[in-house]
Amino acid sequence: MNSLTLHPMKEIRIVIQGEHVKFVTDLLDSVKATGYTIIHNISGKGNHGFHTAHPMFNEMDSLVMLMTVVPPEKVNPVLAGLKPLFDRYTGVMFVSDVSVSRVDHFSTPSSDR
Amino acid sequence: MNSLTLHPMKEIRIVIQGEHVKFVTDLLDSVKATGYTIIHNISGKGNHGFHTAHPMFNEMDSLVMLMTVVPPEKVNPVLAGLKPLFDRYTGVMFVSDVSVSRVDHFSTPSSDR
Amino acid sequence: MNSLTLHPMKEIRIVIQGEHVKFVTDLLDSVKATGYTIIHNISGKGNHGFHTAHPMFNEMDSLVMLMTVVPPEKVNPVLAGLKPLFDRYTGVMFVSDVSVSRVDHFSTPSSDR
Repeated sequence: MNSLTLHPMKEIRIVIQGEHVKFVTDLLDSVKATGYTIIHNISGKGNHGFHTAHPMFNEMDSLVMLMTVVPPEKVNPVLAGLKPLFDRYTGVMFVSDVSVSRVDHFSTPSSDR
Repeated sequence: MNSLTLHPMKEIRIVIQGEHVKFVTDLLDSVKATGYTIIHNISGKGNHGFHTAHPMFNEMDSLVMLMTVVPPEKVNPVLAGLKPLFDRYTGVMFVSDVSVSRVDHFSTPSSDR
Repeated sequence: MNSLTLHPMKEIRIVIQGEHVKFVTDLLDSVKATGYTIIHNISGKGNHGFHTAHPMFNEMDSLVMLMTVVPPEKVNPVLAGLKPLFDRYTGVMFVSDVSVSRVDHFSTPSSDR
């Protein structure tokens, strides 16, 4: 039953324009966030609930969403690392709780595929 | 460090057929949900855990998922506003907790891009 | 107001290579998870925070994300059912809290579309 344990982590989702993906993946590499998923072909509008007169996205901008899962102590480094990007360009970051199953559910020690 | 504060909000995700996107975005505008992200090219099947004999989606329907983040008090108005749509057509709405970084991470006061 | 009640459930997201979708949907059917949404055209890299030398995904693998919502007692059966897949192939499963509105928001008793 131990193999079914779920471990609490933090999920970070970052919505940005497609041309800034490398900035974010480099950041995730630098904080040793060890993986990510990218959802392509999304669009967005407005400022997602933030009280500002400056819209984040023009309608139908070509956007991507990067998702990563990190231990809680890595949320702030990611947020801080995104600041230079968000100072110049629009984007949004969401943080939520998530549980993940243990590593031996996801890769076998004897396999390297 | 104050700039790294995360604020608790509610994330709403709505899965609908593509032709009803405008109904939902009009609703989000009317409750002053100030932005949204749309994930295109998704498919769905079944009724997502609801106990009903009426499937929500036929397999391979062309669906979209709208995501928005609102303060907690706006969840019920969105839910109520979707009722006329869900009375006639199939769809599903999920609500979950999310934290967002403060607005000065996402747009600069001096910029209007 | 009763119609606006939100019910706590568990959201399961499973990221896998596209060729394994049927394995997962068959599993979801077998545990009576009554629906799912599939996000196509995503990509991934690395091992999503898991401490292993074995990357889960090669960069730019063609992946899909399946999302389903189940009562809490069905999380472990899904996790157990995925083990044979994850023993052979790479993939990842996330579990998070979600609330859903009641069924009469999503389908009308008199309609079978």
